[in-house]
Amino acid sequence: MKDKVRVAVVGGSGYTGGELLRILVTHPKTEISVITSREYAGKPVSLIHPNLRGLISLNFTNFSIDKISDKADAIFLALPHGVSLNYAPKLLDLGLTVVDLSADFRLKNPELYKIWYNYEHPYPDLLDKAVYGLPELHYEELKNAKLIASPGCNATATILALAPIVATKITDEKKFISDVKVGSSEGGAKPSEGSHHPERQNAIRPYEAEGHRHAAEAEQELSRIAKANISVSIVPHAVSSIRGALASAHTWLTNELEEIEIWKKIAEFYRGKRFIRIIRGNIHPYPDPKFVIGSNFADIGFAVEKRISRLTTFSAIDNLMKGAAGQAVQAFNISMGFNEDDGLKLVPLRPA
Amino acid sequence: MKDKVRVAVVGGSGYTGGELLRILVTHPKTEISVITSREYAGKPVSLIHPNLRGLISLNFTNFSIDKISDKADAIFLALPHGVSLNYAPKLLDLGLTVVDLSADFRLKNPELYKIWYNYEHPYPDLLDKAVYGLPELHYEELKNAKLIASPGCNATATILALAPIVATKITDEKKFISDVKVGSSEGGAKPSEGSHHPERQNAIRPYEAEGHRHAAEAEQELSRIAKANISVSIVPHAVSSIRGALASAHTWLTNELEEIEIWKKIAEFYRGKRFIRIIRGNIHPYPDPKFVIGSNFADIGFAVEKRISRLTTFSAIDNLMKGAAGQAVQAFNISMGFNEDDGLKLVPLRPA
Amino acid sequence: MKDKVRVAVVGGSGYTGGELLRILVTHPKTEISVITSREYAGKPVSLIHPNLRGLISLNFTNFSIDKISDKADAIFLALPHGVSLNYAPKLLDLGLTVVDLSADFRLKNPELYKIWYNYEHPYPDLLDKAVYGLPELHYEELKNAKLIASPGCNATATILALAPIVATKITDEKKFISDVKVGSSEGGAKPSEGSHHPERQNAIRPYEAEGHRHAAEAEQELSRIAKANISVSIVPHAVSSIRGALASAHTWLTNELEEIEIWKKIAEFYRGKRFIRIIRGNIHPYPDPKFVIGSNFADIGFAVEKRISRLTTFSAIDNLMKGAAGQAVQAFNISMGFNEDDGLKLVPLRPA
Amino acid sequence: MKDKVRVAVVGGSGYTGGELLRILVTHPKTEISVITSREYAGKPVSLIHPNLRGLISLNFTNFSIDKISDKADAIFLALPHGVSLNYAPKLLDLGLTVVDLSADFRLKNPELYKIWYNYEHPYPDLLDKAVYGLPELHYEELKNAKLIASPGCNATATILALAPIVATKITDEKKFISDVKVGSSEGGAKPSEGSHHPERQNAIRPYEAEGHRHAAEAEQELSRIAKANISVSIVPHAVSSIRGALASAHTWLTNELEEIEIWKKIAEFYRGKRFIRIIRGNIHPYPDPKFVIGSNFADIGFAVEKRISRLTTFSAIDNLMKGAAGQAVQAFNISMGFNEDDGLKLVPLRPA
Repeated sequence: MKDKVRVAVVGGSGYTGGELLRILVTHPKTEISVITSREYAGKPVSLIHPNLRGLISLNFTNFSIDKISDKADAIFLALPHGVSLNYAPKLLDLGLTVVDLSADFRLKNPELYKIWYNYEHPYPDLLDKAVYGLPELHYEELKNAKLIASPGCNATATILALAPIVATKITDEKKFISDVKVGSSEGGAKPSEGSHHPERQNAIRPYEAEGHRHAAEAEQELSRIAKANISVSIVPHAVSSIRGALASAHTWLTNELEEIEIWKKIAEFYRGKRFIRIIRGNIHPYPDPKFVIGSNFADIGFAVEKRISRLTTFSAIDNLMKGAAGQAVQAFNISMGFNEDDGLKLVPLRPA
Repeated sequence: MKDKVRVAVVGGSGYTGGELLRILVTHPKTEISVITSREYAGKPVSLIHPNLRGLISLNFTNFSIDKISDKADAIFLALPHGVSLNYAPKLLDLGLTVVDLSADFRLKNPELYKIWYNYEHPYPDLLDKAVYGLPELHYEELKNAKLIASPGCNATATILALAPIVATKITDEKKFISDVKVGSSEGGAKPSEGSHHPERQNAIRPYEAEGHRHAAEAEQELSRIAKANISVSIVPHAVSSIRGALASAHTWLTNELEEIEIWKKIAEFYRGKRFIRIIRGNIHPYPDPKFVIGSNFADIGFAVEKRISRLTTFSAIDNLMKGAAGQAVQAFNISMGFNEDDGLKLVPLRPA
Repeated sequence: MKDKVRVAVVGGSGYTGGELLRILVTHPKTEISVITSREYAGKPVSLIHPNLRGLISLNFTNFSIDKISDKADAIFLALPHGVSLNYAPKLLDLGLTVVDLSADFRLKNPELYKIWYNYEHPYPDLLDKAVYGLPELHYEELKNAKLIASPGCNATATILALAPIVATKITDEKKFISDVKVGSSEGGAKPSEGSHHPERQNAIRPYEAEGHRHAAEAEQELSRIAKANISVSIVPHAVSSIRGALASAHTWLTNELEEIEIWKKIAEFYRGKRFIRIIRGNIHPYPDPKFVIGSNFADIGFAVEKRISRLTTFSAIDNLMKGAAGQAVQAFNISMGFNEDDGLKLVPLRPA
Repeated sequence: MKDKVRVAVVGGSGYTGGELLRILVTHPKTEISVITSREYAGKPVSLIHPNLRGLISLNFTNFSIDKISDKADAIFLALPHGVSLNYAPKLLDLGLTVVDLSADFRLKNPELYKIWYNYEHPYPDLLDKAVYGLPELHYEELKNAKLIASPGCNATATILALAPIVATKITDEKKFISDVKVGSSEGGAKPSEGSHHPERQNAIRPYEAEGHRHAAEAEQELSRIAKANISVSIVPHAVSSIRGALASAHTWLTNELEEIEIWKKIAEFYRGKRFIRIIRGNIHPYPDPKFVIGSNFADIGFAVEKRISRLTTFSAIDNLMKGAAGQAVQAFNISMGFNEDDGLKLVPLRPA
């Protein structure tokens, strides 16, 4: 009998992979058995992730799907879109629990992959089996899930901000705008012109402003909750932080509501959720990703401008945690029957 | 006969005051004759503004309204709201040209001061005489203007983003949201809990999210252009930059429009405007305040998400320049019959 | 029999206090029983430390020394210099273990308090009893210590960089310069002109450059190791980070030494030290505080310029962790007979 | 007769090239006639430098040395080391004034190129003709100079900090350490792993710490001033700013000197220098690059720790201005008989 679940991290040299390692290295019920990287195979993991010096002594290996089941019981795929889908069927056949952090299994409707991702999905049947790994919405389904499609970060921020609103149907259902501000780690570990420090620092730069892909999964999830077709436009902006994403979800109230009523609807919706914190205070009245850095929390709050019936809900996350690796481990924990917060009792840094 | 117009800067120790000095010290047609500061009277200006070491040898003085006309022909008031209004009438009587950078003369309707600023305006007649100092909208009125009410920075960003849209009536007129992201210099030179570096850096922090005051002047100006009542909600967010403000003005198109048509409407609206640059490109497709830092430019651009008829117009400014001191000098230049860009041929820094 | 040691944090609203709480809230063998703040007494701790929302439900209280022994077994004093010394004698009499994070008990020679801190030390006998809380140098003395004087951050960085060098006597003993670069959190939570975000961000600002106080404790500790009088000049510089301190300790080799020999001397000196990591690599060849953020690690490395016999040793710490709260808990753990890393198995964030 | 000197900028797409354009576009006596870029030939300059939108309408071209004399009277070479040297002889033959911003003509001793730059210099005779373009040291030689070797940024900062010290021989001549802190723009416009925003922001990262190349030119210039062999070790550190370099030059006084005497020696050395500002004040007592951003100023100051005879001189520059493009234009102005500050009356931004 094994003491610990052996986990593999595929794509371990990127930021999401690195964040998975940061979490899993102190997870009480897992043992990191394999860390793959095509680019750095054979090199020490801590060479690429100097934060892990002295904590992980493994080297990166090439990903060998044939031997993976000898070494791992569960596998996290931190790979680009369009790559994971080639591995998932076999990994499932081998009996591994698969947590995929790409978009490859997030959408239920295969047609949407053509529209938003420019490819024909080769395994549409797996889309039905995959569970969208947002535990606040899919807790029960995640139990014993074998294929978890971990949400995108801007989608997570947007969905968490809007879910209580669409569930309670207090706003115009066709006019949701999620204006998202994100740190630079969201773009991954690969350098580019736009991520070059002198270009990226001090930028307040809209990007993918004409139709951000995460709208597809956000609409899927919000429509499910609303039991209606929800349209949402996500407009992301690169700002100077490294970690953090704030969604400012602007909507229009259809009826007058007191603030306390809105507060109650949101609080009720998220009652008992381990990683949701509802913000309402006088010193720090709104969510700010600064206060969740390093943790799996999502802070949710709102503001109303009554004279024109504008409601904005805010959600603040650490894009690498609740927006990626943290949420993946949270969903994994549920699927394995662990405590939801195993490995995730990480307290946000302050100041950071 | 004087060679140069003598100008006084009242409230010269703050950031807006300092930025006026940075501009005026190389302005070809002005001479800085008086710089006041209650707090630093008697001390060298360059003690507080070390960037001006070797460039300005004046000391700060106390503001003495009785003697000001001996020393200055024009005066810039960089004072808090509710202070300038006490000085303006006398300064006008003394024959000075007054450029007020506070909100005290921006609104035409005195009732709005009660609602938005919590005071009864003591000189409602002056509100009629004051010219709202946004030269792109009020060029003709600014000629020979004696009292210029220089716009707020978030208002400037919002108005410049939305003016061509409301002028051409292509969107829903009741649902404008200007989601603004601003640098820390917008809060002024006085330290506070929220501006403390460890608190402010990496923040993505909504503030005044339930009714930002600049909405009042933005609605006034946009309604004038639209010849209709325009409602706009301004939701500002503090981000990590020092300088820069980006307004992302989200609206809903009422008719299908090709991008080129939208581009033409915006370009036509701003044709010939010295400090407006229309952005449409493949490497940097949208405005970013990063590319106007240190200059008086406002970069304007847009994005359309056709499937849901969402139009976002962006405007990017340096909040201390086009959002404050630069715009004030631009309006002053017009009022004095100078070239619109005297003292303002400042090229944006890159990278910055 | 108590399950957990009850700990009080006095001065809990500052950054060091907050960092102690971040650590102690997940410490397996302690229970936070009292958190004091003169300024915020009666208010929820999470109001001031929003990162701790949902994690700590205590309110701040006023510090009442008379009742403290009913509530706490150990006490952390996160107070300004000159304040702790008034409380320590009574707290010791009451039987509490005292961990003082101020400078009040760091120096053995009471004369030095007059020179460096401008006060006459009222309890010179306690200076003998206090243990300087740098576990890498005082591990044995810390066992059962009742009064721990936790080191200053710039002193910690300087001592850790130079200890192996002075121990092995390979350099000129009179010419040590520790050029330190530090983040803004080192200045504490109280806003000031210099910490105002627009002033502090992008600063590369020398401060206390004519005799930094931490030299006193660094010289005390380094002289003890060297068994000789060591002089060291600490020249700190404020840079843009929030967390992190790097000491670049410049020295002059008295004999030619191969790099491998220097490496061995440093590695030998720190053999078996839980929180020291010796850095020597090709991608990240020198220590950088970036890779220890959020953790108690100190990364140590060096560079030699042979042609002129210059040796620089570098040490990188998180100033709030190994430079303050983390080191305090580390020393506390040793004094209590706990594992040295209880509560400190915190993995550095990356990227951060 | 030409009204303006026609200038070409070769390598116009990088940061130094861009900064030259920012300066030259408002220079009263030059006309930018050619801007070359191998990578972007045919594309608008403002596509790569969005700050220059509306200010420069030229496209980049390929560099054609044969036709350059038809189009330009002077040429700025903003090219990598080892490239300029191939063009310079022909350009000089063609009668152009050549300002080279690489290291290719900075060193007088050709042997040093083998040691520090790993190449044999093909035109050692030109090294004699080239003038090291630091106007504070070579003003007279720069008049009518045809080949100007513009200094490196870390060398400029180091030389300016140490020149008055070595000239007056008040310190140990063998033990100079210039601990330099620099912003990210110093690394140029090309992205790399180390310049990736999530890696570079918040870094306090030593680099080239075992023998920085700029020591060669610094030692050449300082030895010339001292009329003695000066050794200096330059240890650069990457910090979070975009622009700015601070050299903290640590030295050991050989005699006791009052601060006022040191101040006088420095002030005397730099008397009448247009771009040098000597810093001595109570609010901002030391130089900080923050206060020269965007300008050609170098701020010089110092600190003494008398008890151990340590003297640190500081120099603060904008690495793209006084450290590169600004200084190049300053030297060019002198060579052409223009005012030293033509095009350089740029006031530092504050805050920035």
